[in-house]
Amino acid sequence: MTNAPGESDAVVAIGAAVAEHDLERAAAIWRSNDLGPDATRELFGQLGAADAAGLVAALADDVRAREVLLWMPGDVAASIVSALDTALAARLVGGLPSDERADLLAALPDRSRADIQHLLPPATQAETSSLLKYLPGTAGGLMETEFLAFPSSSTVSEAIRDIRSNQQKYAEIGVQYLYLVDDARRLVGVAPIRDLMLASEDAPLSSLIKSAPAMVRDDADTHALASAFEDQPFMALPVVDAAGTLLGVVNRADATEREHEEAEDDYRVSQGIVGGEELRSMPVATRWRRRGAWLAINLLMCLGGAGVIAWHQDTIAKVIVVAAVLPVISATSGNAAMQAAAVSIRELTLGVIGDDARTAWRRVLMHELLLAVLLAAPLGAAVAVLSRAWGAPWTIGAAVGLAMSLNAVISISIGGLAPLVLRRVRVDPALASGPISTTVADITGFALTLTFVGLAA
Amino acid sequence: MTNAPGESDAVVAIGAAVAEHDLERAAAIWRSNDLGPDATRELFGQLGAADAAGLVAALADDVRAREVLLWMPGDVAASIVSALDTALAARLVGGLPSDERADLLAALPDRSRADIQHLLPPATQAETSSLLKYLPGTAGGLMETEFLAFPSSSTVSEAIRDIRSNQQKYAEIGVQYLYLVDDARRLVGVAPIRDLMLASEDAPLSSLIKSAPAMVRDDADTHALASAFEDQPFMALPVVDAAGTLLGVVNRADATEREHEEAEDDYRVSQGIVGGEELRSMPVATRWRRRGAWLAINLLMCLGGAGVIAWHQDTIAKVIVVAAVLPVISATSGNAAMQAAAVSIRELTLGVIGDDARTAWRRVLMHELLLAVLLAAPLGAAVAVLSRAWGAPWTIGAAVGLAMSLNAVISISIGGLAPLVLRRVRVDPALASGPISTTVADITGFALTLTFVGLAA
Repeated sequence: MTNAPGESDAVVAIGAAVAEHDLERAAAIWRSNDLGPDATRELFGQLGAADAAGLVAALADDVRAREVLLWMPGDVAASIVSALDTALAARLVGGLPSDERADLLAALPDRSRADIQHLLPPATQAETSSLLKYLPGTAGGLMETEFLAFPSSSTVSEAIRDIRSNQQKYAEIGVQYLYLVDDARRLVGVAPIRDLMLASEDAPLSSLIKSAPAMVRDDADTHALASAFEDQPFMALPVVDAAGTLLGVVNRADATEREHEEAEDDYRVSQGIVGGEELRSMPVATRWRRRGAWLAINLLMCLGGAGVIAWHQDTIAKVIVVAAVLPVISATSGNAAMQAAAVSIRELTLGVIGDDARTAWRRVLMHELLLAVLLAAPLGAAVAVLSRAWGAPWTIGAAVGLAMSLNAVISISIGGLAPLVLRRVRVDPALASGPISTTVADITGFALTLTFVGLAA
Repeated sequence: MTNAPGESDAVVAIGAAVAEHDLERAAAIWRSNDLGPDATRELFGQLGAADAAGLVAALADDVRAREVLLWMPGDVAASIVSALDTALAARLVGGLPSDERADLLAALPDRSRADIQHLLPPATQAETSSLLKYLPGTAGGLMETEFLAFPSSSTVSEAIRDIRSNQQKYAEIGVQYLYLVDDARRLVGVAPIRDLMLASEDAPLSSLIKSAPAMVRDDADTHALASAFEDQPFMALPVVDAAGTLLGVVNRADATEREHEEAEDDYRVSQGIVGGEELRSMPVATRWRRRGAWLAINLLMCLGGAGVIAWHQDTIAKVIVVAAVLPVISATSGNAAMQAAAVSIRELTLGVIGDDARTAWRRVLMHELLLAVLLAAPLGAAVAVLSRAWGAPWTIGAAVGLAMSLNAVISISIGGLAPLVLRRVRVDPALASGPISTTVADITGFALTLTFVGLAA
């Protein structure tokens, strides 16, 4: 979080120069200061896409420019690339590692992507197109296509010779394993490079193979990848197609990072930031549209509960204090529902809840209903006492407390089951469980309370 | 998520045998089925700690038992270990990798930890005690103490000889790098093992050092570690103390996993699961206490807003329809505040918001106030129209709409600033920003609405 001494000053000075439209001065200050990832993010987090692109162009240093693209969140990097001159964009993007290049191009508008791809060298173009076919988060979408493969019939000394003569290149792509393939480029074995050192020079590489190679299919999703890396101690796993052809290599770090990003996305979405990550440097129109869309949806979802109250105005007229209790019932039921939903989402992720629907429902209800009753009783009592304290007679207090208790049980059950149902209909439970269960909890809570109070008044 | 064919049947059969208290049969089924991580979690997710410990003991297979401990979430593994016979617990825990062993012991109650540590071999005991000193999530807490270090004055051939004779052991601990130390065990260089292959046999190991070694301090926190791994392309980084003495090695995968866990914790906490992860196999009393504590706190926090309504009962008596509008104002203001808080939390994490308080506040307010006004206007209009639709006169609609708009601006500002203030007072913004800003938004929202309506009625 803390920048190196001097970095903060440099960020401020560069920001000020950009604000005065003096991109040359800004680039000069940047050139004489080696900004790390935090400082770079702080600097570019303050700039709009046009200023950021101008600064990158003025810097004329491809290595640092690529650092900016790698260090910024994906959609910010994409907006900078969109704002760059196409030739410069193609040169920078063409020099990125294959997986990062594909991710960045995938985040661009169709038009810019086509323009930039058109200018890439033919081999890079073909490679990128094949990566762009894969869904993000799958092994194919995460893999790098730079790896070290040899025919399994080559000898140890041939491999060592190749490694010695390409040392620089292999060090750059961080080679750890040797992939052995047959004549049809099907993967037949994997050996850590250090094993070359321990083998006799004229042995065939196939002698290094100790067991059937661990591998993943190109369409394996984030969860399957995480499982595979949990089962295997390797830093990277080879990716193959249905025929077993070696396509690329997915790194443990990239798979874990992707899993991590999905957890962060869930968190972001649960806080009402949907449609993509937001930074305050983005245009106000984009931020307004995204936040507004979510607020509008939520406003519409409130209408059910509010409509129930509007419908029962005569009951409220008789017992005004109920108006003060309703928000308490709404908030408490909603919180209880969210807790149950969070536990179900976690159990789904961990695989503790299995695939069979009936078993899963039974598990959730069996473990939630008793807990719900134990939680509902004190909550109901608290709300009853509260109503009495605000001047309602005990009969009204009892009606309100009973409604609260009953609604807590209903809310907790709905919250616990919502993620299971949502997963079945292929909606992201992290996105929809909260809003759906709190909306239902409001409607049932208001209806129960006002009905019971209507009967008791 | 999907288990291998046969695994699900085995999980069901083992679960049934445990339910009939036939642990021998359960262990026999387990023994004849190789359960992967998902199936293991599904099985143990269903068992209480006593049954789980009984099954582990009946299995009498230390390798599989350790897999259970590594694959289950930390506090579940700890509850199983607590329920085991101490001698068995010590044997299983003693055989875990050093970092996992320390994590598990740290999660145990003080009493069980002391009992188990007492039975570990002296060297393991000393190593574990030194790891337990570190805060979880720091480099010291995450590091492994198994690594390959040589005096930098040794020769390449000496190192190769050592590696050849310890091949089995080094493969188990996944050695990738060679750490070179001086006479005081201070780190002076790092070389990938493959470089041994490319060097002449009688050269000193110091000739492999190409630049000052990348390293982290033992007290570096999760964020500092993530930054270090972002700056460095290495799979592991050496951990040193203040004197530069080499203490251990932290893996990129472990650092990323920890960052990931913190993001998941934030999500969990934001959904009201506090005091530790919950699985439905835990005792109902624990789950009740944890969920109930959070619901009680939230119930107390509702009282401010509800109290404002109770205080203004006469205003509601005059314009009953306001009772239906109040929950809409509460929910909408709360959602708007949460969005602003989520963006601030994200910007703090990314380092886009710097350390200087005045600059940070100005950045947030400068970018939120315009957006807040642009969002507040349509929300106010919507609520005004809604009130009219439910039968309120236009003067009341205008009063309600104005209150909604004003409160949206207040809520968004509070939501945006709360994480900054919380970080300054060292409270986790992910834990407290939501509840605090929604509570304040309720109180101001109800007070503004009822005051304006009181004036207009």
